[in-house]
Amino acid sequence: METMINKQVVLRDYVTGFANESDLVITSTTVDLRVPKGSMTALVKNLYLSCDPYMRNRMRKPDPLSPATAQSFTPGKPISGFGVSKVIDSGHSDYEEGDLLWGAVGWEEYSVITPIPNLHFKIHHTDFPLSYYTGLLGMPGMTAYVGFYEICSPKKGDTVFVSAASGAVGQLVGQFAKMMGCYVVGSAGSKEKVDLLKNKFGFDDAFNYKEEHNLIAALKRCFPEGIDIYFENVGGKMLDAVILNMRPHGRIAACGMISQYNLKNPEGIYGLSLITYKRIRIEGFNCFDYFDKYSEFLEFVVPYIREGKITYVEDVADGIESAPAALVGLFHGKNVGKQLVVVSPS
Amino acid sequence: METMINKQVVLRDYVTGFANESDLVITSTTVDLRVPKGSMTALVKNLYLSCDPYMRNRMRKPDPLSPATAQSFTPGKPISGFGVSKVIDSGHSDYEEGDLLWGAVGWEEYSVITPIPNLHFKIHHTDFPLSYYTGLLGMPGMTAYVGFYEICSPKKGDTVFVSAASGAVGQLVGQFAKMMGCYVVGSAGSKEKVDLLKNKFGFDDAFNYKEEHNLIAALKRCFPEGIDIYFENVGGKMLDAVILNMRPHGRIAACGMISQYNLKNPEGIYGLSLITYKRIRIEGFNCFDYFDKYSEFLEFVVPYIREGKITYVEDVADGIESAPAALVGLFHGKNVGKQLVVVSPS
Repeated sequence: METMINKQVVLRDYVTGFANESDLVITSTTVDLRVPKGSMTALVKNLYLSCDPYMRNRMRKPDPLSPATAQSFTPGKPISGFGVSKVIDSGHSDYEEGDLLWGAVGWEEYSVITPIPNLHFKIHHTDFPLSYYTGLLGMPGMTAYVGFYEICSPKKGDTVFVSAASGAVGQLVGQFAKMMGCYVVGSAGSKEKVDLLKNKFGFDDAFNYKEEHNLIAALKRCFPEGIDIYFENVGGKMLDAVILNMRPHGRIAACGMISQYNLKNPEGIYGLSLITYKRIRIEGFNCFDYFDKYSEFLEFVVPYIREGKITYVEDVADGIESAPAALVGLFHGKNVGKQLVVVSPS
Repeated sequence: METMINKQVVLRDYVTGFANESDLVITSTTVDLRVPKGSMTALVKNLYLSCDPYMRNRMRKPDPLSPATAQSFTPGKPISGFGVSKVIDSGHSDYEEGDLLWGAVGWEEYSVITPIPNLHFKIHHTDFPLSYYTGLLGMPGMTAYVGFYEICSPKKGDTVFVSAASGAVGQLVGQFAKMMGCYVVGSAGSKEKVDLLKNKFGFDDAFNYKEEHNLIAALKRCFPEGIDIYFENVGGKMLDAVILNMRPHGRIAACGMISQYNLKNPEGIYGLSLITYKRIRIEGFNCFDYFDKYSEFLEFVVPYIREGKITYVEDVADGIESAPAALVGLFHGKNVGKQLVVVSPS
């Protein structure tokens, strides 16, 4: 039987505090290039892997009181996430050699997957970069879509604030909000990212949170009349500053709180009692609950991409050996745009 | 012109930290017993005054960054709130001598009011104690009704936790939830209150939060499978403990956070990032936004009261002189049931 070397990204041990590159190690194993007929599995070659903030929570020891959406990774085993893959061999009648997929795979060069609806999607539109299926046309795209349209209850004229706004999700939320006629401001962690927000994604305004010693005042400056919608990607001090600046009946879509994931002791939120007076809704959501809307999302977004009305910026790391640094870099804000790893360009 | 002595409860000065009885002083003035015809005002004699937690926030200095739903009281002037009143004289064609009202009045024996829709309601059902219009049939009743049915999205079989559960709102929420077929647990601050919850209001279980050194464990004990709905009246450490115990897709109706109102520095909430993984909705609300549903509420609740299916416990302070202690007592949990003040029994 034909076998191939299969490099993998393995979790050394559960992580507490900031994740380090050394928490992930590259190992090699071998993989059979054939799967048994009728096995309902497929062998795929992974082309692109997606680096996503929620993966940090899968690196920690499982805690029954503090469950994550997805299970913790297993120390000594390859981690997993979303990726774009090509079918090499299939024991599943719905898949055949050459099919392109995006969905859940191991962080390795080859994966044997059991395709599951809403976790594995065939790629039909191939006139876009395939890497888009780790971002704009994949899980982050769906996250932006359901988070903004389903959770934020947006309407024309609303004032919208997006944190981590140049990231995989934020850059899209800002563009969706502009298309709806909202006033949109984003925060990010460097001048380069702020420039992207203003000049590439069409945000009305943007600021570098690292250069603001008073986030409350920064938001007040950008939103003198207050914030209707906050698309929450960071948590911590920013969330507190936002609550103080929210308008009555404001909505906060809690997509993630990346500033907290690497802290042993999370920061406190002190202004929460204001949500009663202001009648604010804070709603956590997860795109996994909405994947049945994926084809609706594609019908919505594909024309805008073709017309050039939606753009997308990626930060591409080259080779599976670069995957640990790329993933850990997310938590230091090193990525400019959607972070992904090219395992193999085809 | 006939005048009467009018005792009033006056705010001495803006309050920081815990409110004290001495922050409120009883003064006397006089009031004309007639109002001009066509003045659109009415002179009312106040029979009952309602002591409500939100009033603490009206005692503080106005803060543009941290607005309260209702305006701050004015130092040197009588405070105001909800009460039950009888019309003595009217310059408003819709009101006449002898009419009974509930709604916004000053904390005084007589008030001149300008009746406003959704702030003043005529009392038509007089086969109940009139004091009920400060609680069960007034603002707290509406708060429980809209908070539970509109915000909590309840369904049969849900597990429901209510804090400050023997209070004006909590005791009703628990009874509404039981009527819907939910499993209901309440917390309160004394054995007497816990007994009321279990034996009078029909809660499935209850605990004295002051006797639990670990709120997380107490909730885990009461809800081994987790909490679907939290009706939030207290905030602070209890909210954090609840978030850890919430089930996926849980709902938190933020009615109020009384534990925080008297603190110079509010407590932090540390577990908020869990709302993303758990897809929790936290929603602040205010019954003022729903007063157009008041007659719907009466149609709903009145038959249950007549059939004895809903009961209500009041804590009655006698005489306007007792009003400062009654109001301040709320913040120490001295009241057992809905706290009100009898100014005049008729």
